[in-house]
Amino acid sequence: MIKQFVRTSLLSCASIAVLAGCGITESITESASATGTQTKGVPKNIIMVVADGMGPAYTTAYRNYVDDPSTPEVETVVFDEILVGNASTYPARVSGYVTDSAAAATALATGVKSYNGAIGVDVNKQPVNSVMHHAKSKGMRTGLAVTSQIVHATPASYIAHNESRKNYNEIAEDFFDVRVEGKFVADVMLGGGTSYFERDDRDILAQFIDAGYEYADSYNRLASVPAGSNVLGLFAPVALPAVLDDKRKNRLEYLTQHAIKHLENDNGFFLLVEASQVDWAGHANDIASAMAEMHDLALTMEYLRDYVKANPDTLVILTADHSTGGLTIGANGDYRWSPEHLKSMSASVMTIALEMANEDNPGEFVAQKLGLSLSEEELATLDSVSNQDDETRFMAVKTFLDTKTNTGWTTGGHTGVDVEVFAFGSGYQSFTGQIDNTDIAKTIFSFIDKKQPVIIDSDSNKVSEKVSTNIELTSDEDDDGLCDFKEDWRCN
Amino acid sequence: MIKQFVRTSLLSCASIAVLAGCGITESITESASATGTQTKGVPKNIIMVVADGMGPAYTTAYRNYVDDPSTPEVETVVFDEILVGNASTYPARVSGYVTDSAAAATALATGVKSYNGAIGVDVNKQPVNSVMHHAKSKGMRTGLAVTSQIVHATPASYIAHNESRKNYNEIAEDFFDVRVEGKFVADVMLGGGTSYFERDDRDILAQFIDAGYEYADSYNRLASVPAGSNVLGLFAPVALPAVLDDKRKNRLEYLTQHAIKHLENDNGFFLLVEASQVDWAGHANDIASAMAEMHDLALTMEYLRDYVKANPDTLVILTADHSTGGLTIGANGDYRWSPEHLKSMSASVMTIALEMANEDNPGEFVAQKLGLSLSEEELATLDSVSNQDDETRFMAVKTFLDTKTNTGWTTGGHTGVDVEVFAFGSGYQSFTGQIDNTDIAKTIFSFIDKKQPVIIDSDSNKVSEKVSTNIELTSDEDDDGLCDFKEDWRCN
Repeated sequence: MIKQFVRTSLLSCASIAVLAGCGITESITESASATGTQTKGVPKNIIMVVADGMGPAYTTAYRNYVDDPSTPEVETVVFDEILVGNASTYPARVSGYVTDSAAAATALATGVKSYNGAIGVDVNKQPVNSVMHHAKSKGMRTGLAVTSQIVHATPASYIAHNESRKNYNEIAEDFFDVRVEGKFVADVMLGGGTSYFERDDRDILAQFIDAGYEYADSYNRLASVPAGSNVLGLFAPVALPAVLDDKRKNRLEYLTQHAIKHLENDNGFFLLVEASQVDWAGHANDIASAMAEMHDLALTMEYLRDYVKANPDTLVILTADHSTGGLTIGANGDYRWSPEHLKSMSASVMTIALEMANEDNPGEFVAQKLGLSLSEEELATLDSVSNQDDETRFMAVKTFLDTKTNTGWTTGGHTGVDVEVFAFGSGYQSFTGQIDNTDIAKTIFSFIDKKQPVIIDSDSNKVSEKVSTNIELTSDEDDDGLCDFKEDWRCN
Repeated sequence: MIKQFVRTSLLSCASIAVLAGCGITESITESASATGTQTKGVPKNIIMVVADGMGPAYTTAYRNYVDDPSTPEVETVVFDEILVGNASTYPARVSGYVTDSAAAATALATGVKSYNGAIGVDVNKQPVNSVMHHAKSKGMRTGLAVTSQIVHATPASYIAHNESRKNYNEIAEDFFDVRVEGKFVADVMLGGGTSYFERDDRDILAQFIDAGYEYADSYNRLASVPAGSNVLGLFAPVALPAVLDDKRKNRLEYLTQHAIKHLENDNGFFLLVEASQVDWAGHANDIASAMAEMHDLALTMEYLRDYVKANPDTLVILTADHSTGGLTIGANGDYRWSPEHLKSMSASVMTIALEMANEDNPGEFVAQKLGLSLSEEELATLDSVSNQDDETRFMAVKTFLDTKTNTGWTTGGHTGVDVEVFAFGSGYQSFTGQIDNTDIAKTIFSFIDKKQPVIIDSDSNKVSEKVSTNIELTSDEDDDGLCDFKEDWRCN
């Protein structure tokens, strides 16, 4: 519980009063298209991955973190195969040049810049529709898989409308109450947050179960849910454990796999995936958790790379909402970064800091959990803080790792640097070069609009295309021309 | 002189003994091709721009710095039109994950990773050829235009071979002594550095003049040199003034224009341009000079954009060698960056700090030079440091601006984050996505190898192509397919 409190308190949000009864008010008049949609050059399935807080230094740092030091080169990683450009992240003018996760998520989800703190509403606090709403209106299946509570800023902005990201309970209610032509916005919701859904004042979890959703409260229970189900999977009261503390070191990959299993259908799906806790590691200036959360993200992207190889009608986009912590690779005038000290950890810095207080030999305990041999002086320093408060012990261990690795930080908040954009699969070319975060939503809206009805031939079970004349199609030639500079699997 | 000392001392170099007599020892056996070379898809002219120290935060910061706050959007800048990807910058394994400018310049110039401090030599201190050497061997004209002394790490690595970047005098000697088939490596050299060339022990400047080079010691003198000349232009004893202190606020653009004027010819040219002092602003953690130097770079890129529109057979690549200072847009938990406080400065922080010591009202003097109205408290703080030493006054003014703008820094040195890559014009597609800094040199080597002899039709003065069969050509179709996602002027 202390861990969750610290994590939540690290997030700085604009203080905005609750907007009572904020719900979806605009009409969604477009009817769902016929079952089965795909046009060559327009993706059938769209998977949007947000790595919260992953500024440019995080991806370079991760490459160094997993580097094999016995070879001359720094080996490339999955991100290197799929980089296509950068995105600006600034929020609406009223909030200056540095965005929070809510305004950035609203931009990524809806294509509309808003103020810091906004969840699916514009600067006038009016609801705006997300690409997930639009996908649902077109008959696609929809879902999310995140490592935060599912009502946290990023997933919330794809479903809910609220003037403040802090109103978790109201946001949870929107998950049930906001509808697209009577349908729930998301068919699959995987992450944390039972405390917001199973409440004394309203049992939203029970409402979803009564509405036909399968419920899973553990990773193993999720595995037994029949494919194609509607699923609400909540695996923790608030957020999932930090990956360094979780039994599943591939928890985001696992949730992503299972979300896709339930979403696949002839008419395509939209899935939001979020590596939520990269950001929290950044807020805490905790380089160990930052790299561990990046590794879970990398496993997820490797899985998605293989998925697109097998399903080339799928588009995957990865970006960050902003950078967090002002992370730098090297600091204090020293041309050095030493990630090898992070590779043998068996618990998060927070867990180590909490547990060391109960140990007879706290320095030795920390050394064992870090997987490092420490000097007598280092052990003595750690011993000396063992009777201090939680925050002091946390700072001692995390500062120890900063010094060992020579990691720099400038803030417990966000910074305004552009973030990288990665994309592969059908239609990835639309995200190349320098774009704005709103362009990502606008392009996804466009792709969903362009999806063409397909007719299932019941005799052969073969899908044939039915091309309408009122939609601009991407030609085969364009795709072929754009696809010869990277591996084939990036292209459709 | 104090200013120059401070700048030089900020650069941290590996301490390496002088390698006596280090010169070019490998043979360059390829003969120059016939006069006039160009193949469609292969650039005739190649302009390599290095923005020293310009990590990703610098380009985003610059966009905010020139933003018009009266509009809803943050206006795009020239860099946004030309971004194509990222490059990793790590040096040879022996130097870890954070490069210095020498190892990075050697990688960019030669395609070979080396140790920090290396100028045009590999990890075994053996000379390696640069793309400028190769261009000269193929009969192209060659040059450089930089704002540092021309013997500084980046330009040095394109011409000289030395085990240490610190050996400025030996490097200056290499500028005259290293030859490609008897020819000087660079036909045009513009920047600072008379103190290294006009010495008591050896007057290299006189040697160049005797060898037929035009000499210019002022910007205005440079303007009078006849087009097509060989030119040595040295406009300061060491580096050029910081742009905030220079009479020419477009000094890099001006030098670039004049370099091209002297390099243009039927057989094409290779030009190195360096915005050298972005890095020095980063080392000093001076956000005001960082943005001002970025502005001179932006003017240069706008000029080059227009040049490529008129000369689409030209390739321009822009990248950084590394990031400097650990710059972050926002700091200390505050979601704010306020570049408006930097827009009215009439001198650099260093000059203000030096001159305020001689003023009766130092606080008011600083306010006037910054172009800001300061509070009584702020004036008093600045008054209180006026009798301190140069460094204390510099720190007082620069910290004042950091606080006003909410700028973050983590180091007086470099950091290891990947840098952005920008490219446009003929063949720019070869630099898209994630690459390594050595890939830039390798691609330029390949382009120079692929250049085809062209025959000038003396009657019509029209250039027709003569295509040999032993070289892989980029097809027209590839170019057309790749060129439809950005403005036409990027494509050939």
